[in-house]
Amino acid sequence: MKLNIALLAGDGIGPEVINEAVKVSDAIAQKFGHEITWKPALTGAAAIDAVGEPYPDATHEVCKNADAVLFGAIGHPKYDNDPSAPVRPEQGLLKMRKALGLFANVRPTFTFPSLLDKSPLKRERIEGTDLVFLRELTGGIYFGEKGRKDGGDTAYDNCVYTRAEVQRLAKKGFELAMTRSKKLCCVDKANVLETSRLWRETVQAMEKDYPEVEVSYEFVDAVAMRLVQWPNSYDVLITENLFGDILTDEASVISGSMGLMPSASMGAEVSLFEPIHGSYPQATGLNIANPMATILSAAMMFENFGLMEEGKAMRDAVNKALEAGVVTEDLANGGKAYGTKEVGDWLAANV
Amino acid sequence: MKLNIALLAGDGIGPEVINEAVKVSDAIAQKFGHEITWKPALTGAAAIDAVGEPYPDATHEVCKNADAVLFGAIGHPKYDNDPSAPVRPEQGLLKMRKALGLFANVRPTFTFPSLLDKSPLKRERIEGTDLVFLRELTGGIYFGEKGRKDGGDTAYDNCVYTRAEVQRLAKKGFELAMTRSKKLCCVDKANVLETSRLWRETVQAMEKDYPEVEVSYEFVDAVAMRLVQWPNSYDVLITENLFGDILTDEASVISGSMGLMPSASMGAEVSLFEPIHGSYPQATGLNIANPMATILSAAMMFENFGLMEEGKAMRDAVNKALEAGVVTEDLANGGKAYGTKEVGDWLAANV
Ligand SMILES: CC(C)[C@H](C(=O)O)[C@@H](O)C(=O)O
Ligand SMILES: CC(C)[C@H](C(=O)O)[C@@H](O)C(=O)O
Repeated sequence: MKLNIALLAGDGIGPEVINEAVKVSDAIAQKFGHEITWKPALTGAAAIDAVGEPYPDATHEVCKNADAVLFGAIGHPKYDNDPSAPVRPEQGLLKMRKALGLFANVRPTFTFPSLLDKSPLKRERIEGTDLVFLRELTGGIYFGEKGRKDGGDTAYDNCVYTRAEVQRLAKKGFELAMTRSKKLCCVDKANVLETSRLWRETVQAMEKDYPEVEVSYEFVDAVAMRLVQWPNSYDVLITENLFGDILTDEASVISGSMGLMPSASMGAEVSLFEPIHGSYPQATGLNIANPMATILSAAMMFENFGLMEEGKAMRDAVNKALEAGVVTEDLANGGKAYGTKEVGDWLAANV
Repeated sequence: MKLNIALLAGDGIGPEVINEAVKVSDAIAQKFGHEITWKPALTGAAAIDAVGEPYPDATHEVCKNADAVLFGAIGHPKYDNDPSAPVRPEQGLLKMRKALGLFANVRPTFTFPSLLDKSPLKRERIEGTDLVFLRELTGGIYFGEKGRKDGGDTAYDNCVYTRAEVQRLAKKGFELAMTRSKKLCCVDKANVLETSRLWRETVQAMEKDYPEVEVSYEFVDAVAMRLVQWPNSYDVLITENLFGDILTDEASVISGSMGLMPSASMGAEVSLFEPIHGSYPQATGLNIANPMATILSAAMMFENFGLMEEGKAMRDAVNKALEAGVVTEDLANGGKAYGTKEVGDWLAANV
């Protein structure tokens, strides 16, 4: 297969972890006879510094014409905690999601046996946790009309959903459930919100098309509780944009493996793959960042092209590295720590 | 002091736990020379069954004219999971909050040393946790305009806040912080929402009036993570209605003492006190429900009248009961379990 991949390294440790993902992906491509052309483009604070905006048109062109996007991380302290700054990296993120139509954010949370003890939760609570959130990513209160009235003293944000938006996301959820344990949980606040009632009735109407899938409906506050109590009771969860933002982050810390979690944002034409961790500015350039989440994101990318063996080879290599202790300092537990590059080299040699 | 207290027992175990709170409150009143007149009124499914709506006008009259409201729990399985039912108990709850102007929901989360092992979190993560959420309760997306368009295919919920609403809630937060460790965290999503930017700028402008309070600003998704990782790093948190709904429920399960957590909803004129647990319909009438959260809610009520010693006497009695093993089956750990009534009797005798 010939693949054109847009490469958005971003800020902080982004470029370093992206480098290793490229290295390991190239090793896979060579082994399985594919040809990858990488197309680097600017994003985040790096793009603001260079051309004055976080998701420049030139970057959009590159992404739109690529077969997929591999993304590092964005965010820089100089833009932190100043939500009123005129240009901010996260605006680029939102613009990119909308412009590329990345409507479904796929966020798996699973455990690695060797990392269970890193979890804040007790072992018996998290063992066997393997869930996936599908978060709607281009609608809801993020993109509704917002503004001020009364000379600035009243602020509003409108949350809007259409039935078609819900169907599109829910369809992915049902399909994913069919490939897993056939359990789907729709997370909403249908006892309060009209948008949630639309979500619930739309998903209910789709149940008949997937008779094998067992669907449950839970309120977002109840899910926020049960995720901490019994995360391993969930499998596939679908939800709207803002609930997904909160719950996927909550879910990411329960497994103890947050630093290893990949994600995908699926669009109708192009999809994007990125680690869930941030740009970790303090670690920039130190060759200490853990590249595994980005490498596992690249594995999701291969699988999304239908290249299942390729993805599996990458995931197997990561598991082998964890077992062999070929890990960066965040996972070294006081033992020998490898550098970002060295972990990438080892994985490239072992896929 | 002469106190008129509206008594809203509600559904399920509500009447049973309320009975014990009355019993213990009366014991306190006798000991300290107060006179409490209890004014029972209907609410929840019980009110729907009796008069067709969950918060009848007659109940509102009773609450409005009372010095405080003591509330049990509402919710009944026959209304569950049917958000489209024409009349639902939670509509009564929202109507009551708005009609009584209960704008600040106070939700403490603290630990009891003897219950630490009930937490899903590891002991070292929760030891010393003692935080309070102030959740705005009469604004935001709960009460904004909501509806359908396009023949029902588009749904919307509008989230609205005014500067005055934010100031009113934040003032309570600053004042509470001054009585505690002088740390206040404002939880918002100011990188995306205009209402959050109003929250943040309003709180920032109030900082100068409380120079001793150290204020931090965190995004809701980050707080959803840190609450699981390091709950004991928080003290007072203020937030808007929907974020508060999700985060206070999340916080309630981390301590391991959820069944014991009280809460208050403060208004300009009257305030309401209730346990955070639900109506637990399966346990109705079995004399097994734990009345301690309701009794601790009554303690908050006394303290809110400035009767600090009275409140402390109730809390001390609960601690003594926990140490002496005078507990209902949920806390009995396989040991002897006392009935709801017997726990109430013991506490009334020991305040
Ligand atoms: C940075 C922010 C706008 C973004 C979001 O809220 O979607 C982030 O939290 C995420 O989840 O990707
Ligand atoms: C029942 C529901 C409307 C209510 C809310 O969302 O406020 C409940 O979850 C709560 O937190 O008191």
